[in-house]
Formats: sequence, structure tokens, C-alpha cells
Amino acid sequence: MNGAEALIETLAGCGVDVCFANPGTSEMQLVAAIDQQHGMRAILGLFEGVVTGAADGYGRMADKPAATLLHLGPGLANGLANLHNAKRAGSPIINIVGDHATYHLQYNSPLTSDLEGVARPMSHWLKVSRSERDLAQVGAEAWSVASSYPGKIATVVTPANHAWNEGSAPVAVAAILAPANVPEGAIKDAAEALGAADGSKAIFLGGRALREGALTQAGRIAAATGARLICETFPTRLERGAGRVAVERLPYFGEQGEEYLKDFKTIVFCGSEPPVSFFAYPGKPSWLSPEGARLVRLASMEEEAEDALTRLADELGAPAEPALVQEATRPAEVEGKLDPTKLGAVIGAMMPENAIVSDEAATGGLMIFPATAGAPMHDWMTLTGGAIGQGLPLATGAAVACPDRKVLALQADGSGMYTLQALWTMARENLDVTTIILNNGSYAILNIELMRVGVQNPGPKALSMLDLRNPALDWVALSEGMGVPAKKAETVAELHEALAEALAHKGPRLIEAIL
Amino acid sequence: MNGAEALIETLAGCGVDVCFANPGTSEMQLVAAIDQQHGMRAILGLFEGVVTGAADGYGRMADKPAATLLHLGPGLANGLANLHNAKRAGSPIINIVGDHATYHLQYNSPLTSDLEGVARPMSHWLKVSRSERDLAQVGAEAWSVASSYPGKIATVVTPANHAWNEGSAPVAVAAILAPANVPEGAIKDAAEALGAADGSKAIFLGGRALREGALTQAGRIAAATGARLICETFPTRLERGAGRVAVERLPYFGEQGEEYLKDFKTIVFCGSEPPVSFFAYPGKPSWLSPEGARLVRLASMEEEAEDALTRLADELGAPAEPALVQEATRPAEVEGKLDPTKLGAVIGAMMPENAIVSDEAATGGLMIFPATAGAPMHDWMTLTGGAIGQGLPLATGAAVACPDRKVLALQADGSGMYTLQALWTMARENLDVTTIILNNGSYAILNIELMRVGVQNPGPKALSMLDLRNPALDWVALSEGMGVPAKKAETVAELHEALAEALAHKGPRLIEAIL
Repeated sequence: MNGAEALIETLAGCGVDVCFANPGTSEMQLVAAIDQQHGMRAILGLFEGVVTGAADGYGRMADKPAATLLHLGPGLANGLANLHNAKRAGSPIINIVGDHATYHLQYNSPLTSDLEGVARPMSHWLKVSRSERDLAQVGAEAWSVASSYPGKIATVVTPANHAWNEGSAPVAVAAILAPANVPEGAIKDAAEALGAADGSKAIFLGGRALREGALTQAGRIAAATGARLICETFPTRLERGAGRVAVERLPYFGEQGEEYLKDFKTIVFCGSEPPVSFFAYPGKPSWLSPEGARLVRLASMEEEAEDALTRLADELGAPAEPALVQEATRPAEVEGKLDPTKLGAVIGAMMPENAIVSDEAATGGLMIFPATAGAPMHDWMTLTGGAIGQGLPLATGAAVACPDRKVLALQADGSGMYTLQALWTMARENLDVTTIILNNGSYAILNIELMRVGVQNPGPKALSMLDLRNPALDWVALSEGMGVPAKKAETVAELHEALAEALAHKGPRLIEAIL
Repeated sequence: MNGAEALIETLAGCGVDVCFANPGTSEMQLVAAIDQQHGMRAILGLFEGVVTGAADGYGRMADKPAATLLHLGPGLANGLANLHNAKRAGSPIINIVGDHATYHLQYNSPLTSDLEGVARPMSHWLKVSRSERDLAQVGAEAWSVASSYPGKIATVVTPANHAWNEGSAPVAVAAILAPANVPEGAIKDAAEALGAADGSKAIFLGGRALREGALTQAGRIAAATGARLICETFPTRLERGAGRVAVERLPYFGEQGEEYLKDFKTIVFCGSEPPVSFFAYPGKPSWLSPEGARLVRLASMEEEAEDALTRLADELGAPAEPALVQEATRPAEVEGKLDPTKLGAVIGAMMPENAIVSDEAATGGLMIFPATAGAPMHDWMTLTGGAIGQGLPLATGAAVACPDRKVLALQADGSGMYTLQALWTMARENLDVTTIILNNGSYAILNIELMRVGVQNPGPKALSMLDLRNPALDWVALSEGMGVPAKKAETVAELHEALAEALAHKGPRLIEAIL
């Protein structure tokens, strides 16, 4: 058995059953090994940003790592931006990156680069195999690291000769570190802080604290203490909808976030650090929590959130029934030409049961989140690391992880163009993803940001750098060019018809919503 | 004047008149500064791989750096693969990468990453400004480094507060290091080696040694010594065609390269290191020069090639007239269904005067290079670093640098999908690029490589990872979706008609050649 076969069999033994791949020559032995491995699915992406973003979406929904297969330093580099998002999300991913044979590196052939240097910034953990016999062991370690709560990016650098040399063997399934439970002191501190009578209080929730089980416990605490439940601006995976404990979402702009939080005297953090401004702006705050407020860390992103919230609720003698349970509501009917509000209303009215939303809708989509609050239960995934081009790949991976659920990709046009190749993978794998492109012909957020950083009266050259018209992108053509049936919608009626068709059928569809 | 304005005015003063950009919030002050800077053109790319690849194409053709404008670590990461190619090409590029305000970094907001770590692997030089007053100075240094022969990748990390703070001023144009001329000893060694009578000899040429002036000198040496002139497999910019000194091109596969070189007793290298295999393969050589041959370095890639060749020719008392001057020839007429040979023949027959070719045609395009040897003079640019997704951006940048020349992008389908967003920039800027997509529905090279690394009887899962059908890509739709008029060609007649139309008009066109 060669090293590649031992690695892949080891990972399969660990339960890794999907590999998102864009291989090259140095990964051919790994391709052959995956080929032979029953129960490991290989899914091709036509660009590495699709591969890593799909692995993120898979990891968020499956709560276990997929593998990626990437080609040397430049191939990994193409996938870094979505690994950045995945790292911020706490997603589990195992990157398998082929390298030149160890003896070939000294020749500095054209594709040689500082592969470890490329990998390090976006990997929690990184190892290069030392031999063909070591390779499977490195893979098992990577699986163990990637699977540690809530999820980590583990990168295995695989020299080609370690992949093709014979004499290797798979290793046994590695251990996963148990999630860290918070110490009793943290529970007591949080209970004491929330129990104190004076002033308004909040629990600020992020990471795994936004899953249904944890939210139910947070709702019990709210019932006992009157604390408000606030969710980080960009949750990894928020389980929400009618019947679940609802959270408020911190606004995006720093000064709005500061205003939102300013009256709280006590904030308990669970699964998140205290919120900060996404960017710096002249004269605006970076740190958003109010001065003088009591800030208590119940659990970091790496500590078991549901356990911490359960213990805190019990410590407070909270009732079994949570407060803040969301009622079933749907937005009122709208009609006429589409705009962001009507788009939200239509999606809110039509959101199917048990959907998964990949939200990279940016400014044009701001009204969709509130409009879907009372829709049937669904999962809401967002752009955790701010590196645009995540939405379509994330939807792709989520659909692979959850083939029986409808995935809704809410995608701004500008960021969609970064990784539009994901549409091809959706078509190829017949993934049940309905993509709605929010086409406003602009990096609209940057028109706002230009003013916010203090630029007055921008000229045509500045505005041209934020503009996506001239020529207008035709997303119907782009989508059909990659095999995904598509329709354009300029009115509520057109969107309604196209969305009804998409929701009634399995398989990928794209709707270009003109805003 | 704020730091951004001082930086941009300094670069403009150095002669930087194009900025390929994909900015975000942290670069808004730089956008405003470029807006105000007369004589600096801003060109938007809808993905950073387009931006950096275009800067490479611009640098290869203009022999001076363009600037890029990139958004933090993830934005730079998206551009790394084409920076890798540019670094290998010896192209001049100045990357301006925005970062968070220095005081904001400690908050670890979502887009924070190890930006310097991301930049380092693909930059020759990297500096972070220390203040708003330092920023212009860093820019001037970057220009100086980037402009040093033959060209370097210089990266300026620009904290947002250094960009927006007032109190800065532009600095004077920096000095460019003069190209290093090779020492006299190197000339004498090479002359002595080539002068020795026994055995066959070659001059192996790369980098700037493939420009017309240097080639003329190499042709004089060939006339004096009978040495053959061999060109590296992936030249940065080869000036060729009827009337120029012609070179042979080393084959791609290592064992073919080794066979090609095996009878040479003496090889003089100019502008290139001795050739090595692109990849390692079990049981195949990495080092391609024949054992026992005399290998003489005349000039490295960083040493002035034309000067070295001129002095060598003079030292050898070579005649003024070069040998090996290419005759004007055109391939014979062909007809019928397109295949790689006929594709080459048509392009060879129709290649216009003074064209620029961006060649990422891969396997389907192998016959185009020989078929165009006797076409009118043109420049041939190739994939120098092996990181696919270079071709369309490179053509984009070359067309910006040379608005009066027709650019021909010969683009394989698989690699074209990496950075297809370049088509939109071609349309927006009305660039005179004719793109020919070689659509064989496959990563065809990998089907060959799979065998070459020893994989026997690959199964359907392996083959699916190399396959681009199911669904087939419709490049006409993709192109038109981004505003570039497109036609499909399945026969010689269809290609002829579409190419004639494209060559007769200014502006972007795409032809999807079905192979």
C-alpha cells in the first residue's frame, strides 16, 4: 500500500466521506487512492475557492470535517480566503495539499513556493509528512485536530513521493479531544452578574451557542433574569425560526453596534468575544461594549456552549420553559417592482420548512433576515470572516452535507463573481440549491463606506471602482453557461413564480433578482 | 495631504500610471487618492486573481510596474497565485494592500489575518508603513525594488490610519538600481567553452535573453560557433516571428527534455538556470542537463542578458549578421472539423502583425506555437509559474500596456475557468483582446499525468476529477454574460470566419473552439 492509499483509508476510517477536490499532477496518487476508497465521495470544484468554501459549508452542517484536495502552494493560495472564513467560523476542515517530491524541491521548478508559508496564516495546525509511513499518521492527527470543538483547519502537506512510495499502512482512528467545559467559577460569575438586580443585562451569543439546544438554555436564562439575547453580527450557523428561541442581531456598523449596546450594565459572553467594529473609521469606536459595563465571559468559542448555558440556567434556578420563543409569522403580501424590502417579504413568505440559508446578500439583503424571523425553522449561515466569495461555495457544501434539505443561497452580485464557478459544481452534483442573486450592479456597501471613512464628493474614477455596470453582468447567461437553469426577476410576481418553481423541484436553480 | 494621497502622488511621480484594483473598505482613502491623481488609470477587476495577473501582463509588456490595490490578507491571498507566476516571470509589480488601522488590529475583527505572512511567499520585498509620513517613502522604495532588473514583486502594506491621517507629503522619485552586468570572467568562460571545438553546443536562453535585441546577439554567437539556441519551456516574453532570430523550445515533459539535451557537450545559460523537470515522477529525472556536459552560466535571470550576449559575441569575434533568422512562412490551408493541428494552422495563417499572445492553451494548444513560428513578428507570453488561471488576466494587462496591438489569448477551458472574470474587465475597458477558448471538456494534461505517475486503470471517480463535462461549459454564454461578444467554432471555416471578424475590429471577442 502506498502512502496516498494509507492516508485516504485512514481518513475514511475516521469517517471522512467527502473530498472536495481540485487536484493537479502532484496529487495524482491521491486521486487514485480516493478512486479506490469506497464510501469517499469526490466532488470537483473548478476553482480552489469553491473547494475550501464548500468544505466550510459541509463542516458547518455536518459537524465533521470533509477533506479538500489542493495543488501545491498556488492551489492552496487560491483557497485561502475561504479558509480564512472557515477558520473564523470554527469549521472543521482537513486540507490535503500535494507538494513536489521531497528530493525535487531543491530544483526550484516553476510551481515551487513556500508552501508552509502559504498554509500557516489560515491553518490552525499544519504538518508535513516525514515519510510514506508517516503520512497516514499525520492524516489521523489532522482529523483529530480538525474535529476538536468547535472545529479547526488542519493542513496536511503531502510530498508526492510520500504519496507514491509503497510500504505504508493505515493507522487506527485517532482520538478527538473532548470539548472543554467551562470551569465552575465561570458559571458562578455569570450567575452572580445576571442575578444582580440593577440595570439591563444581555447574553451575547456566538459560535455554537447559536444552535437550538444552546438557545433553549439561553431562553431559560432569559426567563429567569430578563436578560436580552443578542447574537453576533455574523453567525456561523444560527438555528432560528418559529418555535425556537429568538435572538436579536447586533448591527453591522460599529457606531450602530455601540448605540445598540450602550444601555447594558451587564453583558455575559458565550461562544464569542466582546464585539468590535468590523473596520476602523476615523473618529469611530473599535470597541463596542459600553464603558463601565460588567463584561463576563461565560464561555469562549472553544468551550462547550450548550453545557455552559445549561449549567448557568440551572444555577439560576431557571424554569424549564424558555422565554423569547419565536412565534410563527409571515410577512404581508407585497406586489410591484422588486426592492430590498419586497425581496425580503417574498422570501419570508415562501421560506420552506427546514431550509438552510447561505447569506452573502450584503446590503441588498438586509431586509431578508428580519422578514424570515417567523418562518419555519431553518439554519442561517453568514460570512464569518468577511472574505467575500463565500456564499455560493458554502451553499454547495451545505447541500452535500444535507441532501434532504433545501439550500437557499442569498448572494450579492459583486461577491458572487468571486467564486461563481460553484454553480458548475451545483449542476454537476445536482445539488438542491436555489441561488438568488441580488443584482444591484454595484459593490453597494463600498459606496456607503467611502462616505464613512470621510471621502467627500468622490469623482467618477472612484465611483467606477465600486460599480459593476458597464457592462451589466447577465447572471442568467453566467448560470446557464455552467449548467444551472436560471430566470430573471424584476417584479414580485416574477420572483414568486421563479421561486415557487425552484422550491417545488430538486436540483439547482438560479434567480437573478434585479434591485 | 493624507498618507494615501502622498503615496499615490509619489507613485505617479515615479511613472506608475495604471492601478489594477479590487478595493474594500480599508482601501477607500486610496481609492479617493487615485481618483484625484491625474494620469493614473484605475482598472477594476472582479476578482483579485484578475488584478494581479493583469499587473503581470502589463509589467511584461510595459517593462515598468503597475500598481495593484488589494483588500487585506484575504484579498491579497486571492491574488497570490498570479503573483507567483509574476514572480517567476520577473515581472515588476507594486502591490498596495490595505490593512486595518494599526490601533484596530488588537481587536482581531473578522477580516484580521497575518497579512505579512500571506504576502511573504509571493513577494520579493515587503514593507509595512510605520506612519502616514512613512507611507510615501515606502511606496518610493517599492517602486525602486519593483523596477530593478528584470522586475520584482514589491508589496506595500498600508494601515488605514496611515492612509487617512493628514501631514504627509510625496517624496522624490527614487533611484532604480542599474541592471547588474556580468563580470568579465563570465564572458571569458563562456567564450572559451563555446570556442572549444569538440561536441555540440547550445545556448540556453530565458528571461530577458528572449527579447529581440538579446536574441540578435545570440544569433551572432550561433553564426560564430554553430551553437544551437534553446529557449526555456515557459518564457516570460519571447519576441519571435519572421525576421527575428529563432529559438528551439525545450519540451515540457522531463524525459523529453532530457532526451532533447542529451547530446550536448557544452551548454551556456543566459537568463535562466539549467532546466529541471516541472514535476517529479517515479523513476524519472528531475535534472535535465546531460551528465558530464560542461554547464556555464553566462548570466542569471537578474543579470543584464543583452549586454552579456553582446560582449560574448564580440569576444568571439562574431559577425554582425545573426544566424538562425526565421523566414516568413505560413501553414498550409486546412479544412474540416477542428482539431489541435488545424487550430494551430488557422492561427498560424491568420496571426496579425505585431500581435501579443497570452498562451495558456495547455495540451490543446501544443500545435499553435510551431505553426506560428514564421508568422509576422509577435510576442509570446507563457505560464511562467505553473499556477493556472493566468492567461485571461495576463492578456488583459498586456492590452492595457499596448493599446495599439492586438492581443490573442489562447486559453484552455479548465484553466480559463479559474479567472474567467477577466472577460468583464476586457469588456469594460474595451480592450483589444481576442480570446480563443480551447474547449476539450477536460483537464486533459491530468489524464496524461495520471498515467505518468504510474496510476493504472483509473476508475470513474478518478476520471471524474479530471473531467469538465457533465455539464459542459458554454463559453459563449459565459462570455456574453460578462459583455464580451462570443462565437462557437467547431470547424475550420467557422473559426476562420470568427477570427477574421475579431481581427478586423478593435475590442474584445471570444471564440469557443471545440476540440
